[in-house]
Amino acid sequence: MNVTVIGLGLIGGSMAIDLRRKGFATSITGVDKNPGHLEKALELGLIDKGASLEEGVKNADVVIVAIPVDKIAALMPTILDLIDPLTSVTDVGSTKVLISRAIDEHPRRGNFVPAHPMSGTENSGPEAAEAGLFENKICIICDHEKIRPQHLALIEKMYHEIGMDIAYMSSDEQDHSTAHVSHLPHATSFALANAVLDANDRTIIFDLASGGFQSTVRLAKSSPEMWGPIFRQNSHYVVESLNLYIKHLEEFKQSIEDDDDRKLMELMKNANRIREILNGESQDLVRKESTTTKLYTK
Amino acid sequence: MNVTVIGLGLIGGSMAIDLRRKGFATSITGVDKNPGHLEKALELGLIDKGASLEEGVKNADVVIVAIPVDKIAALMPTILDLIDPLTSVTDVGSTKVLISRAIDEHPRRGNFVPAHPMSGTENSGPEAAEAGLFENKICIICDHEKIRPQHLALIEKMYHEIGMDIAYMSSDEQDHSTAHVSHLPHATSFALANAVLDANDRTIIFDLASGGFQSTVRLAKSSPEMWGPIFRQNSHYVVESLNLYIKHLEEFKQSIEDDDDRKLMELMKNANRIREILNGESQDLVRKESTTTKLYTK
Repeated sequence: MNVTVIGLGLIGGSMAIDLRRKGFATSITGVDKNPGHLEKALELGLIDKGASLEEGVKNADVVIVAIPVDKIAALMPTILDLIDPLTSVTDVGSTKVLISRAIDEHPRRGNFVPAHPMSGTENSGPEAAEAGLFENKICIICDHEKIRPQHLALIEKMYHEIGMDIAYMSSDEQDHSTAHVSHLPHATSFALANAVLDANDRTIIFDLASGGFQSTVRLAKSSPEMWGPIFRQNSHYVVESLNLYIKHLEEFKQSIEDDDDRKLMELMKNANRIREILNGESQDLVRKESTTTKLYTK
Repeated sequence: MNVTVIGLGLIGGSMAIDLRRKGFATSITGVDKNPGHLEKALELGLIDKGASLEEGVKNADVVIVAIPVDKIAALMPTILDLIDPLTSVTDVGSTKVLISRAIDEHPRRGNFVPAHPMSGTENSGPEAAEAGLFENKICIICDHEKIRPQHLALIEKMYHEIGMDIAYMSSDEQDHSTAHVSHLPHATSFALANAVLDANDRTIIFDLASGGFQSTVRLAKSSPEMWGPIFRQNSHYVVESLNLYIKHLEEFKQSIEDDDDRKLMELMKNANRIREILNGESQDLVRKESTTTKLYTK
């Protein structure tokens, strides 16, 4: 199968590695407006050849769009203009409402599978690509009723091949949920790094390498070029999520300030429930909480 | 050397493993008021025998106190009452001001090395003990001028044996710094878990298992019995640190709300600086920023 990857960063590059490894892609074409990324992707063997956007999407069976979300929304109409009826297109963006809106009236709307494979690291660029990044993670597919069945089937098969389960929901549900479980942790991590760097002149920051701090602040290393557009596109839900978080932070702080031992213990015990949820009950949550979301397990 | 470990949880148990592995301890006695922990520690081979507090500290060369910080402050005077002149005592608590205050006038004050080996996981109990937990981490030793040189030397040697560098500072400096780099990340993680669990009935929480969320919320699994006393003992600095953090969160949120792209990018780029610091410049920071802290590298 001929696969074209537009955007050879962490996600695009990692998909290229796994699609080749699993035998899904027999030929991979790369498109990137950054010539350095294109060269590096060739050198690393992520792609077989580089191409312009026009060349790249022509004769591709699958086109994967792995660029920042503002660029996806801007470029998607052009991509759909260029493709054949039997080319399937998917994106990997962390927001979906604005991207879907950009192409909802396009005659090739049915070729496009809006997707959010939920995996990543704090690193970026083709060098950051790694095998197995998507294994046992969830891929959200949005508004599947708007997709032609053949295109949906092929893209589902592709995400399954690289080890993902698929959750179906509307673009709006995806943006709302992702605000809480992905965008919020990124925002809190950026703010934590800034707070600790700000404290730097007043105290001794010595153990930045300790495990607890490292894991909490890890996401603060993430790319501003990628995250700026995500926060902007999903600002309504991100702000809602941050407000909820700040409310809980204030409550936690208040219990310490008031020396309210009972309350503090209650808050920590409630937070501890996240352990069970992370230990495999998250899929039950999907089934219990949502009326519209379905989870399709490989 | 006869080592007695009081409190056979994650830290006490992990120290027992490494002190035996490195040949520092030839005999390890365990003291724990929880008979289940004592039994488990024997079964796992963490200790050679269990004992009462009185028996345990008698004839020990080194006594390690690895219990919650409120219990350390309460028990330390009794421990110092019971020991011989040539028994060295250290603790592993995350706060130091109140613990030091509890024994500052004790005739055996010079036997006690207030220490904070900065490592851990979100797990607790003897089963959570693991080898190599302290490798390449920093151990803070407080108020070293109050310690008799032989006791200081032996405890320094012990922390070096298990792979730690040592940083020297006052109890107050340690509590202030630790508020930022350890207590704050724990508080933010507890609040994040609570916020996301709170959002649960209004949205679809499906991908709690994704990498970004997992690492940011990991510390929310930590033991309330351990963390309650830490937050209480260090409430002044923890509240100060939380206020600074909330200020930065509000600023971050405001830049999204105002659609202030320039500001948002600036905030994320500033946060990105944490990458360089985590990549090995943290020790330079110690030397640059502090006039009183020294770092003693093994």
